[in-house]
Amino acid sequence: MASTTRALLLVTLSVCAIGSANKTPYKEHVFRTKVDHFAYHNDETFEMRYMVADQYWDRNGGPIFLYTGNEDDIESFITNTGLMWEWAPEFNALLVFAEHRYYGKSMPFGNRSFESPSKLGYLTSEQALADYADLLLHLKAKLPGAEKSPVVAFGGSYGGLLSAWFRIKYPHLITAALASSAPVNMFPGLVPCSTYSIAITEAFRRVSELCTQAIRQSWSPLEAMGATEKGTKTLQEKFNLCQTLNPGNYTVFRDWIRDTYAVLALVNYPEPGSLITPLPGSPVKAVCNALTKAIGNRSAMVDAVAAAVNLFFNSTGTRKCHDVSIFQSAVPSWRFQGCTELVMPVCSDGVTDMFYPSSWNLTEVTAKCRETFGVTPDIYKSVMLYGGGHLARATNIVFSNGDVDPWASVGLLEPPSDSVVVIIIPDAAHHQDLRFSTPLDSEALTAARRVEKNYIRKWIDESLPVPEKTPRVVAKKRASSVLFKFSF
Amino acid sequence: MASTTRALLLVTLSVCAIGSANKTPYKEHVFRTKVDHFAYHNDETFEMRYMVADQYWDRNGGPIFLYTGNEDDIESFITNTGLMWEWAPEFNALLVFAEHRYYGKSMPFGNRSFESPSKLGYLTSEQALADYADLLLHLKAKLPGAEKSPVVAFGGSYGGLLSAWFRIKYPHLITAALASSAPVNMFPGLVPCSTYSIAITEAFRRVSELCTQAIRQSWSPLEAMGATEKGTKTLQEKFNLCQTLNPGNYTVFRDWIRDTYAVLALVNYPEPGSLITPLPGSPVKAVCNALTKAIGNRSAMVDAVAAAVNLFFNSTGTRKCHDVSIFQSAVPSWRFQGCTELVMPVCSDGVTDMFYPSSWNLTEVTAKCRETFGVTPDIYKSVMLYGGGHLARATNIVFSNGDVDPWASVGLLEPPSDSVVVIIIPDAAHHQDLRFSTPLDSEALTAARRVEKNYIRKWIDESLPVPEKTPRVVAKKRASSVLFKFSF
Repeated sequence: MASTTRALLLVTLSVCAIGSANKTPYKEHVFRTKVDHFAYHNDETFEMRYMVADQYWDRNGGPIFLYTGNEDDIESFITNTGLMWEWAPEFNALLVFAEHRYYGKSMPFGNRSFESPSKLGYLTSEQALADYADLLLHLKAKLPGAEKSPVVAFGGSYGGLLSAWFRIKYPHLITAALASSAPVNMFPGLVPCSTYSIAITEAFRRVSELCTQAIRQSWSPLEAMGATEKGTKTLQEKFNLCQTLNPGNYTVFRDWIRDTYAVLALVNYPEPGSLITPLPGSPVKAVCNALTKAIGNRSAMVDAVAAAVNLFFNSTGTRKCHDVSIFQSAVPSWRFQGCTELVMPVCSDGVTDMFYPSSWNLTEVTAKCRETFGVTPDIYKSVMLYGGGHLARATNIVFSNGDVDPWASVGLLEPPSDSVVVIIIPDAAHHQDLRFSTPLDSEALTAARRVEKNYIRKWIDESLPVPEKTPRVVAKKRASSVLFKFSF
Repeated sequence: MASTTRALLLVTLSVCAIGSANKTPYKEHVFRTKVDHFAYHNDETFEMRYMVADQYWDRNGGPIFLYTGNEDDIESFITNTGLMWEWAPEFNALLVFAEHRYYGKSMPFGNRSFESPSKLGYLTSEQALADYADLLLHLKAKLPGAEKSPVVAFGGSYGGLLSAWFRIKYPHLITAALASSAPVNMFPGLVPCSTYSIAITEAFRRVSELCTQAIRQSWSPLEAMGATEKGTKTLQEKFNLCQTLNPGNYTVFRDWIRDTYAVLALVNYPEPGSLITPLPGSPVKAVCNALTKAIGNRSAMVDAVAAAVNLFFNSTGTRKCHDVSIFQSAVPSWRFQGCTELVMPVCSDGVTDMFYPSSWNLTEVTAKCRETFGVTPDIYKSVMLYGGGHLARATNIVFSNGDVDPWASVGLLEPPSDSVVVIIIPDAAHHQDLRFSTPLDSEALTAARRVEKNYIRKWIDESLPVPEKTPRVVAKKRASSVLFKFSF
C-alpha cells in the first residue's frame, strides 16, 4: 500500500506545475557519471539529468540549493519545491535539481535498464547519493565561484531521506539539509508495521470517531459480496469499475478502496483542491458524512463506500469508470527499491485501525520480490547505512512533518540532539512546506518555513570561512584547544 | 614507491607480534557478509575474519574498540595495536579486530579473488567500511549488552583513514575514532606529488644536511655504471645482489635503493630495533656517516651506498644476498587499490629532494593499471567520498602523526575544527602511538597517548544516554530549543 500511494502522490503532484511555470525558468543539462561508484568490475557510465537556475546566484560563493531528486522525473519536483525558488533571491542561491538514476530520463542502461538485476541492480540510494556528490564536484570545478559555495540539500518524502542522508554521508560536501516528510522510521524493526495504518485511521478519527467505526464495519458486507460471482457482479456495477470483478480478483478491488482512504488522508485540505483529483474542501468529512449514516445497514454501507470512492475519483462527474489498478501502477524502479533496501512493512489488524486484518510477512514479500525482480529484500540495509531514526549524531538537518500526513507517523518527531531540528506543522500535508507559498497557507505553515529558513541561514553562516580580518586569532584559539605539539 | 614501502612496513611489523602474544588472548571468528553492499546484481556473500577479546569487557554497555583492518592479515594488527589492549581494562572495552576484504583469509571469491576485475573489483574502501558496519550490527544484535555500546574505531596508516572515514560515514554507529598516521592528503590534487620525497629528504636532513647532498650526488656514478654491461656487473658484485643486473633492469635496482632510504626514514629510532630488519640505533646517522665521507669521490660513493644498503638489510651479517624486488612484492590487493581509488602521486626532482628526477604521470599510471588489472584509476574518488584533508565538518576524530614519519607530510597537521584533534608527536614514527608502550617511549609519546585517551573518554561520555534521574529535564531543554510545534 505504502509504496504505491507514495508514488502516486508524486506522479500526480506534477499536475500543479503548470501554474507556477513562469516563475521558474531553468536549463536542462546532463552529466556523465559512473554506473557503479563502489566497485570496479566495469567501467560503464551514464548520463544523469539535472536542471539549473542561475538567475539569482551570487557567483562570488553564493550557496547551492540542491534538490535530491527522488522517485520521479526531475521535472516533477521543480515547481513542487517552490520553497527553493522563493528563497533563492534572498540567499543569492544557485538552484540545482538532480534526477535520481532509473527515473525520468536518467537511465543507466537506456531502454534496457529494467531488463534484469544485472542492469537494475545499480538502483540504490547510495549510488544515487554518489551521483549527486559527483555532480557537485563537477559543478564546483566547472562553475567559477562555486568552489567554496556551501551546499544545502532539499528533499521531500524519499527525497527528504536522501537530503538528510546526503548531509550525514557527505558532510564535506553538504552544509545543511531540509528533509521534509522523510519517513526515517519506515524500515523493518523500527516501528510496528501497524503504524502507518493507525496513522491513516487517526486522520479519519480526527474528523469523526464514528466514521472509523463505519469503515471498519464496511469490510464485512464487501467481503461477503466479493466471495460470489453474483456479489462481485453487483460490486462491479455499484462501483462503476472499468475492470471485470470476480471472486478471483476481489482483493485487488478491496486494496484499491483501502488505498483510496490512505490518499484521502494525505490530501485532506480544508480548501477545495486538485492535488491528485479535483476535490471539495475537507474531503474526509464529506466521505464520512455518507459512511456514518449507513452504520448498521450492510447494504447501505456498500453504497456509502461506493459514494466515497466516487467522491474521491469523480467529484466532477466526468470519469466514465474507475480503474482499480490505479495504485499499483508505480514504476518498476520504485517497486524494485521496495524489494531491496527500501522495504516498508505495512500491516493492519482491523482493531487498532479501521482496515481489515492484513499481515506483513517477510517470507511472502521475499517470494514476490524474487519472482518479480530476482532479488531478495535487504531489510536491515537502510538502518545499517543511515541509522533509521537513530540520528543523535546527525547535525545541521531540519526534519519537518505535517501532522495530518499519515507519513509523519514514521517520520522523526523528537529532536535527537541540539544539532537536528524537528518541526511539526499542524494541518500540513505530505511535504507541503516545500511548495510555493499561497495566500491560503496557514499561519503555522508560514511560521514553519520561517524557522526552516533561519536554521538554514545559520548553518550556512557557520560554515563560511572567517573574514580576512580575524583569521589568525581564530586559528590561534583553535590551535590552543585542539592542536598538540609536544616538545620535551 | 609509496605504496610498496607502506605495504612492506605492515607486512614486516608482524615480526614483533611474538613478544607480546601472551598479553593478548583472543578468539577467531568469521562473519558472512555481502560481496557487494551497494548494488543488487548478485546475491554473493563471503566470510570475513575478525578477532575478539572480551576478557576486559563490561557487558553492561561497555564500549567496543574496533580496529579497522587495513592492507594485511588481521593478525598483523592485533599486537601492533597494543594501545587498544592497554586501554581495554580501564575502559572495560570489548576488543574487535576486523580483517579487510581481500587481505589475509577474508577472500570474497576464495582463490579466485584475484582472477579479474569482475572478482577483484569489489575491493574498495566503501565496501570494507560496509563490511565493518554489517559486522557491528551483527555483534550488537548477538552480544547481550552490546546493543547500546559506543564504538571507537582505531587504525593506523590506511587503517587510520578507514577509522576516520568510518566515523564520518557511519556517525550512527561510530562514536569516535583514533586515526594514526592517516595520509588524508595523499590523493591527486591535494598536495604536490613531490611532498613525500621532500619529507624523506627532510628526515635525512635532520641528521645531516651533508648527507642529503651525498645521496643526491650518488645517483650520477650509479647511473653511469648502470648504463653498461660491465658497470652493472660491478654493481651486482658490490651490492651483493641475488639477481643478475644489466642495463635493462638497472631502474629496478635504482628504485630499490631509493625505497631503502624511504624505509630507513620510517624506522629511524634512536634505540637499536628490529621493526623491519635488525638495526643499530639511529640508523640514518650510521648510513650518513659513510655517505658524507665519500662526497666528491664517485667510486667511494658507490661503495658507501652499498655499505648503507648493507647496513639496513644485513647488519647482522647473516643475509647471503640482497633481493632488489623486495619492495615490489606488495600483494596484488594493495596494488589494485593503488590503481583504483587509492591513487598516490609520488614524484621527485633531485633538487628539492635528494632523489633522481622522476615524474608522476597519470597517462603512464593509467596504462600500467589497465595492463595489470584492466582498471582505470579513479583519481578523484577518495576526495569525492571522504573530502581528502578538508575535514572541517568531521567530529570526534583524533588524527595523530609522528613528526619523523615521512607519511606525516600528507597527514592532517592543522585542526580543521574544534571537534577534530590533531596531535603531532616529536620523534615518533609511523603510527607508533598505537603500539604497546615500552620503557623506552619518549615523554612526548606518553603524553600524546594520554591526550588521545582523554578525548576518546570525553566523546564516549558525551555519547552515553543521560542517567535515569534527569532525562526529563534534558529532554525538555532540548525540546524547547529545537522542536517546534506550531499551534495558532
